[in-house]
This record gives sequence, C-alpha cells and structure tokens, in this order.
Amino acid sequence: MNGAESLVHTLLKSGVDTCFANPGTSEMHFVGALDRIPGMKCVLGLQENVVTGMADGYYRIARKPASTLLHCGPGLANGMANLHNARRARAGIVNIVGDQATYHRPYDAPLTADTEGMARTVSHWVRTSSHASQVGRDAAAAVQAARAISGQIATLVLPADASWSQGGIVAEPLAVAVAPPIDPHAVENAARILRSNKNVLMLLADQATLAQSQRLAWRVARATGADLLASYTNAHMARGRGRLQLERVPYGTDAAIQALSRYEHIILVNANPPVGFFAYPGKPSTHYPSNAQIHVLSRHDQDSDAALQALVDELGAPEVALPDPGPRPEAVGGAPTQEGLALALAALMPEHSIVSNESISFGRDFYKLTHAAPAHDWLNLGGGAIGDGLPVSTGAAVAGGGDRRVISLQADGSAMYSLQSLWTQAREKLPCTTILLNNRKYNILIGEYQNVGAVPGPTAMGMLDLSNPDLDWVQLANGMGVEAARAITLEECADLMKQSFRQPGPFLIDLII
Amino acid sequence: MNGAESLVHTLLKSGVDTCFANPGTSEMHFVGALDRIPGMKCVLGLQENVVTGMADGYYRIARKPASTLLHCGPGLANGMANLHNARRARAGIVNIVGDQATYHRPYDAPLTADTEGMARTVSHWVRTSSHASQVGRDAAAAVQAARAISGQIATLVLPADASWSQGGIVAEPLAVAVAPPIDPHAVENAARILRSNKNVLMLLADQATLAQSQRLAWRVARATGADLLASYTNAHMARGRGRLQLERVPYGTDAAIQALSRYEHIILVNANPPVGFFAYPGKPSTHYPSNAQIHVLSRHDQDSDAALQALVDELGAPEVALPDPGPRPEAVGGAPTQEGLALALAALMPEHSIVSNESISFGRDFYKLTHAAPAHDWLNLGGGAIGDGLPVSTGAAVAGGGDRRVISLQADGSAMYSLQSLWTQAREKLPCTTILLNNRKYNILIGEYQNVGAVPGPTAMGMLDLSNPDLDWVQLANGMGVEAARAITLEECADLMKQSFRQPGPFLIDLII
Repeated sequence: MNGAESLVHTLLKSGVDTCFANPGTSEMHFVGALDRIPGMKCVLGLQENVVTGMADGYYRIARKPASTLLHCGPGLANGMANLHNARRARAGIVNIVGDQATYHRPYDAPLTADTEGMARTVSHWVRTSSHASQVGRDAAAAVQAARAISGQIATLVLPADASWSQGGIVAEPLAVAVAPPIDPHAVENAARILRSNKNVLMLLADQATLAQSQRLAWRVARATGADLLASYTNAHMARGRGRLQLERVPYGTDAAIQALSRYEHIILVNANPPVGFFAYPGKPSTHYPSNAQIHVLSRHDQDSDAALQALVDELGAPEVALPDPGPRPEAVGGAPTQEGLALALAALMPEHSIVSNESISFGRDFYKLTHAAPAHDWLNLGGGAIGDGLPVSTGAAVAGGGDRRVISLQADGSAMYSLQSLWTQAREKLPCTTILLNNRKYNILIGEYQNVGAVPGPTAMGMLDLSNPDLDWVQLANGMGVEAARAITLEECADLMKQSFRQPGPFLIDLII
Repeated sequence: MNGAESLVHTLLKSGVDTCFANPGTSEMHFVGALDRIPGMKCVLGLQENVVTGMADGYYRIARKPASTLLHCGPGLANGMANLHNARRARAGIVNIVGDQATYHRPYDAPLTADTEGMARTVSHWVRTSSHASQVGRDAAAAVQAARAISGQIATLVLPADASWSQGGIVAEPLAVAVAPPIDPHAVENAARILRSNKNVLMLLADQATLAQSQRLAWRVARATGADLLASYTNAHMARGRGRLQLERVPYGTDAAIQALSRYEHIILVNANPPVGFFAYPGKPSTHYPSNAQIHVLSRHDQDSDAALQALVDELGAPEVALPDPGPRPEAVGGAPTQEGLALALAALMPEHSIVSNESISFGRDFYKLTHAAPAHDWLNLGGGAIGDGLPVSTGAAVAGGGDRRVISLQADGSAMYSLQSLWTQAREKLPCTTILLNNRKYNILIGEYQNVGAVPGPTAMGMLDLSNPDLDWVQLANGMGVEAARAITLEECADLMKQSFRQPGPFLIDLII
C-alpha cells in the first residue's frame, strides 16, 4: 500500500467521505488512490478558492469536515481567502496539499514555495508527512483537529514521494476532543446578573445561533427580561418559522453603538465582545458602552446548548413557546427594492432551504424581513473576504444531498471573485438558485468613500464602478452551463424563482437593481 | 498631508506611475489620494490574482515596477499565486496592502489576518508602516527593492490609520542597487573551458534571453563551437526575425535528459542548473549528466550583457550575423494542429507583438515553429502556478501603451483560474487577442496520470475532464464585454486573427482542438 492509498483509507475510516478537488501533477498518486478505492465523493472546482469555499459550505450544513485536494503552495494560496473565511466561520476542513517530493525540494524547481508558511497563516493545525508510513497517522490527526467542537482548519502537506512510496499504514480514527466543560461559576454569575439587573444583553454567536440554543436563550430572556442579539457575522443561523426572530448587531459603527448603548451588562454566549469590522477616524473600535460589564457564559469552543441549559436550570426558567413571526409574507411587485426582494424570498422559499447571503450593500435588510419564512438555514460571509457566497452555496448544496434548495443572495462584485463555482453547480446538477444582485458597482465602497468625506472623482470611480463594460451574468452563467435569465421587476424575479425551485439543477437570476 | 498622499507622491517621484488595483474599505484614503493627485494610471482588476498577474506582465514589458493595491491579508492571499509566478519571473512589483488600523488590530475583527506572514511567503521585502510619517520613507525603500536588476517583490502593508493620519512626508527616490560586478576569474574560467573543450553548453536564462545577450552569446558560440540553450522557464524572451533561434531545454524529464546528455561542461549565464519541474519515481531530479562540470559565468542578479561582453572580449570573438530563420511561414488550413496553429501565428502576427504563452499541453511546439515570425516578445509562465496567462497579457498590453498587439496562447483549464482578466481588457480597450485552446480537459494531467501507470477511471476523470458541461468561451468573453467567436478550422482561426489584429480592442477566439 502506498502513502496515498493509506491516506484515502484513513480519511474514509475517520468519516471524511467528500473531497473538493483541484489536483495537479504532484497529486496524481492521490488521484489514483481515489480512483481505485471506492467511497469518496470527489467534486472538482476550477479554481482553488471555489474548492475551499465549497468545503466551508459543506461543513456548515453537514456538520462534519470534507477534505480538499490542492496543488502545491500556489494552489493552496489560491484557496487561502476562503480558508480565512472558513476559519472565521469555525468550519472544520482537512486540506490535503500535494507538494514537491522531499528530495526534490532542495532543487527549488519553479513550483517550490513555502507551503507550510502559507498554510500556517490560515490553519489551526499544519503538518508535513515526510514518509509514506506517516501519512495515515498524520491524516487521522488532521481529521481529529478538524472535528473539534469549534471546527478547525487542518492542513496536511503531502510530498509526492510520501504519496507514491510503499509503506503506507491505515490509521484508526482518533477521538475527537471533548469541549471544555461549562464553568458553574460562570453560570451562577450570569444568573446573578440576569436576576438583579435590567439592562442586560445576551449576545449569541456560532452554535448559539442554532435552533436548540435559541430555544434555551429565549427561555432565559422571557424569565429575566434580558434582550437577545446575535453577532453580526455568524456563519450559520437557524431561521424562519419555529425559530427565534433573533436580530443581529448592526454592521455600521454608528448603528451598532446606538443599538448597544443602553446595556450595562453583556453576557457572551460563544460570542466575542462586539467590535467594528473596520476602524474609522474618531470612532471607537468597540461598539458597546465603555462602562458595560462583559460576562462570559461560554467560549466559542464550548457547548452553548449545555451552557444555556445550565443557565435555564439555575434560573428555573420555564418552558415557553417561541414568539410567532406573523403570517408568511406575500410577494409584491414593482421595481426591485431590498424590502420587496426580501418579501419575495420569504413568500417563495421552499421549507428547509439554505440561504447563502453575500448580498453586501443591497442586502442589509434581507435578514430582518425574512423571519416569517418557512424554517431555513441562513449562511453569512464568515471572515469578510468577499467571494465566499457562490462556493459556500455550492458546498452546502453538496451537503444537502440534492434535497435542499440553496438560494444565493449574491452581490455582483463579490460574485466575480469566484464565479467558477457556477460550473461545479452545473456539473453536479445542484439545486442552487443564485439571485445575482446586479448594481454594476462596488456600492459598499462608494459608501465607504463618501464616509471618508469626499465625492469620488473619475480615478476613484474607475476603481469602484463595474460598468463600462457591464457584466452580462446571463451569458456568464450560460457559458458555464447554468441556465439563467434576466429580471427587471420583482414579478419577473418571483416567476423565475418559482420556476427554478421546481427544477432540480442550478439557475441564475440576473436581477438588475 | 496624510500618509496616503505621501505614498502617492513618493511612488510617482520614484517612477511608479501605474497602479493595478482591487481596493476595499481600508484602502479608501489611498483611493482618495489617487483621486486628488494626478499622474497615476489606475487599472481595476475584479480579482486579486488578475491584479498581481497584470503587474507581472507590466514589468516584463515596461522593465519597471508598477504598484498593486490589495485589500487586507485575504486580498493579498488571492493574489499570491501570481506573485509566486512574478517572483520566479524576477519581476519587480510594489504591493500596497491596506490593513486594519494599528490600534484596531488587537480586536481581531473578521478581516484581521497574518498579513505580514502571508506576504513573506512570496516577497523579497516586507514592511508595515506603523505611522503616517514613515509611509513615504517605506514606499521609497519598497520601490528601491522592486527595482533591483533582478526584479523583486516588495510588499508594503499600510494600516488604515497610517494612511489617513496627518504627518505624511514625501520621500526622495532611493538609488537602485548596482548589480554585483562580473568576476574576471569567472570570465577567464569560462573562456578556458570554451577554448579547450568540445561538449560545452552555454545555458541562458532571464536577461540573457533578451536581444543584446543573445547577440553576444551567439558570437561566443560561433567563435568556440559551444551550443546555446535557454532554460525551459524564461519569463521573457526576445524572438523572431533579427533575434537568435534559441531553443529551450525540453519540459519532459526524458527529453531534457536526452537533450543534455552529451555535455561535459555547462556554463550558466543567469541560469540555474537544469532540474525537473517535478520529481518522478525512479528518475533523477537533475537533468544534466552527473559527470558534467557546472560553471557560473553570471548569476541571476548580475548583468548578463556585461558578463557576455567580457567573455566576447576575452575570447576575441568577432562580430557575426545572427543566422537567418528562413522565410516567414504561410498559414495552412485544416483541423487545428500544434504545427498548423504555430504556422498561422508566425504568418500573421504583427511586428513587435507580445506573445503570452500559457498553452500547456497543446502548445509544446508553438515556440519551435515561430522563429521566422517578425520580431516579437515571448512571455512564459514564470513559476508554474497556472492562471498567469491572461493577467500577464493584460498587464503587458497596458505597458505596451496600446500600440503593441498581445496574443495569448491560452489553455482552457488555466484560463478559468483568472478569466476575470477579460473584463479589464474590455474596460481598458486593450489590443489583446486570446486564442483559447479549448480541449475541455486538464490534458497535461491526463498525461501525468498515465505516466503514473494507469488509465484514469471515472473518479479520476471526474477531476481531469472539463466537459459536462462544456465551457462556452464565446459566452464567457461576451459576458465580460469582450468580442469573441468560435473557430473549428485553422482557416477560421486565421481569419479571426486577421480581423482582431485590425481592430483596437480585445478579441477572443474559442478554438476547439
């Protein structure tokens, strides 16, 4: 058995059965092993940021890591922005990065690069297998790292000779680390704060924004009068009917400061204290009042369900129904507006849809207006590196197994970073509906420029405007085998949504906004 | 004056007048300064690997660095593969990477990343300006580093507050380092080897493959009977009528070993000893005979013109005409073949064209068959990280100032990594003709897989095949504003080439091969 074969067997034994791939020469023995050993679903992406973004989306829905297959340092580099996003999303991923043979590395052939140095900037765990006999053992350790309760990026560098040499040994799965237990003093402290104060916020993030934690947090809120908010960036939130109408801290500095201004105590449930996405001259980095007390109920690597259950028990908070979000909205017509599109989405999305939101400037209000939709999962950009929307959708659809509709709310500027995702959607016949919000500019940056205090002149607009020429997303999608159509009105958009939800494969709606 | 303004003034004073950009929020003050201060040409790319690849292509033709403008660590990461290629191409680039404000970094906001750590993996020079007063000085040092005789990647990280704060100081240009002088003993030694031995190869790379060094090397070869070859990967070669018919060491291991087998002495002129692009089981890493003597006339950071002139003088090698490459070929018809397309190219390309070659498997023979074309520049993939062809073409066209036709010989698989380049070609109305070699597979990898000793099964072909669905490059180009047409025969291809050479803007020929 060669190293590559031991790798495939070990990954499968450890429960990794999906590989998002963009291989090269140094990975051919791994590709050969995948060909010979049944059980691994391999999904090709035509650029590596698509590959890593798919693995992120897959994890968020499957709640287990996939593997990637990347070619040498530069192939890893192409996928690093979405590994950054995945790290922020706390997604677990096992990257397999093929590299020069160990004995060939000193010759500094053209593709030789500081692969480990690159990997360290986006990974929690990095190792190079220097011999076939170590590959299985290292792969099991990589999966163990990736499967931590707060998912981790594990990058295994696989020199070509470790892959092709005989002596591979299949490794047994390693036990996944148990989450650090909830501190009873933290629970008691939170209960004390909640009982004796009025202006208390419980801030939820990550696992705490999924269904079970939401129900527990709502019991706490009802029993104590505390407010609940979610962090602005949560990679994965449970939403719609039967879930909590959990608002998020606003993105903008002024709005966030305003929203948090009245809280004297903030209890963090797997969340970080709210800070600005960016700094701005004369504005504070932190968005909570300087005299607010911060209390940690649970950290991101702890089990928020257990923490909130302990708090419910401590408070004796009774079972209570979640508030009703009101009737399901009806779609409205006319020119596309944020509100109108959100209502169409809420009115039309199939139950258990997955919404991947990289709508940036146009989509600020989509979230607020879709609480009364059927139960669905909502995926946000994890780390602020635009270009994760389409790949995350694609990987989420793979994890959904073809049964769950994935709806991308996708800004045009961001979509251009990883448009190759559409090809994989077509190849895998994935149930992905992309609503391409085509405003032909980096509109968020035009706003940021104006915040800086100036009207953009021709040179600035030359870097902020995406017209001249206009991008034709119908042609771009068709060119990659994805059916597409343009919509100018909300009626047209709604008709195309309905049409696409009825058919099994991908569809793109080029919505001119 | 704020830091950003001091940066723009310093770059302009140091001779950097072109900025390839993909900005974000943390760069808005730099964008503002570019807007207010005249003199910098700004070219937008819709993904960062396009931006860095354009800067590489620009350097190769302009022989001076451009600046890039990138957004935080993940924006830099997106451009790292083509920075790797540029580093291998010895292109000088000044990267400006905006980042979190210094005081905001400890809050670990979502886009915070190890920007310096990323930069180090692909840069010769990295610095973070921590205060507005340092920005000008640091920018001058960055340009100095980039302008070394062997161009370097200089990355200046610019925290948002260093950009927006007052106190910027414009810095004077710093003197570019002089190339280390040629060692007279190296010249004497090379002359001695050339006079007293028969089986001598002079191996040329980098600057030594441009016109002046070619003429000098040819005088040496004629006077001594030595052979001349170029390294396989040379980012930029002078070719066509009036230049030397300089063959390259073959790419394949067996062919390279065969081509070099008879040499007892190899004199390196700015070249490295020839080694394999990759290692293969049972084959050597080095491609020259184990008993061959390696002699260094000049290193990559020395002036090959000076080294070869000294060798010509030492040998008393007389002036001699370059060999005539024979008559200009005529285009042939029929189904597309490597030879037929190469002849069409040689027959039709305008004088002083720039050919960017990322043709991979189909294009192995293009080079050999185009010696008798008019004088032109030939650009190769520098570092083996595919996806540089279209961006390099685009940047080269910017450097060509609109007067020089750029012809991309572009494999389809590689093109998909950075297809966004086409939009910039359309926006800037660049004279770029892309011949898209559409074989609908990663053909080089299918060959590599077969080298491994197996016929690809369905899982392997699922990662090597680009059909299902086919990419429609006419639609992809049109979708980004580039005129395009499909060609099935060489006649159709030749007609479209002629048509595109007559019109000022970009054109893509989707050649089904």
